[in-house]
Amino acid sequence: MAVEAKVTWQEGMRFEGTASSGHTVILDSSAEHGGQNAGFRPMELLLVGMAGCTAMDVISILRKKRQKVTGFEVRVRGERAEEHPRIYTDIHVEYVVRGEDISPAAVERAIQLSEEKYCSASAMLGKAARITSSYRIEPA
Amino acid sequence: MAVEAKVTWQEGMRFEGTASSGHTVILDSSAEHGGQNAGFRPMELLLVGMAGCTAMDVISILRKKRQKVTGFEVRVRGERAEEHPRIYTDIHVEYVVRGEDISPAAVERAIQLSEEKYCSASAMLGKAARITSSYRIEPA
Repeated sequence: MAVEAKVTWQEGMRFEGTASSGHTVILDSSAEHGGQNAGFRPMELLLVGMAGCTAMDVISILRKKRQKVTGFEVRVRGERAEEHPRIYTDIHVEYVVRGEDISPAAVERAIQLSEEKYCSASAMLGKAARITSSYRIEPA
Repeated sequence: MAVEAKVTWQEGMRFEGTASSGHTVILDSSAEHGGQNAGFRPMELLLVGMAGCTAMDVISILRKKRQKVTGFEVRVRGERAEEHPRIYTDIHVEYVVRGEDISPAAVERAIQLSEEKYCSASAMLGKAARITSSYRIEPA
């Protein structure tokens, strides 16, 4: 299966990004790098994509495990190398699950399945960066 | 330097994504996977980010080389593995530069600098996928 994406130059460092699903997003650099911060930095989108990828896995698995999730966030923090090409060398993923009687074992298993089996984005970025994770369960 | 991103569950498979720059984007899966296509697939954002990353490099370099660019697009196509975790195994990047008297050598050099030196996203995804590229120059 193929996935397509495209960015079209607008002006300065601003681009409109689109992909196969038909949605659009604006990308821009900071003023420091000649842009106007009218949109996401490209490297931010890698982390948003990775967060979304594992988040969709985990929420699906928690529902299959009949967990009563009322709120769910995935926070990702990437540390970049000092030298070009300035990849992320370390990425930490924090899962925050809110709900009633959420089972820590279910959360751990869901995260493990995403990390080890399902999440395509983590599998790719994990070839270049060291990925670590943690989770927190909060009351509904 | 650290970059942060976060996705917050809205409902079904829909998440709102944000990052350090303060922008937001909606992520969702297809109906086939329990979503409503209200936003990008997470794996699309990796390709949009990669396209934007190399596009910003190339447009910056072409301007430094005083090329009169009037239009510019970067199209990316990723082929996914059949088996989980379904990474991109092959990514092709096509650069389309429009303008007056655009020098093919300048375009080639700009692409090479992005691929080999500057583009953080290509450097990361290139650890997992085979990346190829091509370019086309069109009249203004």
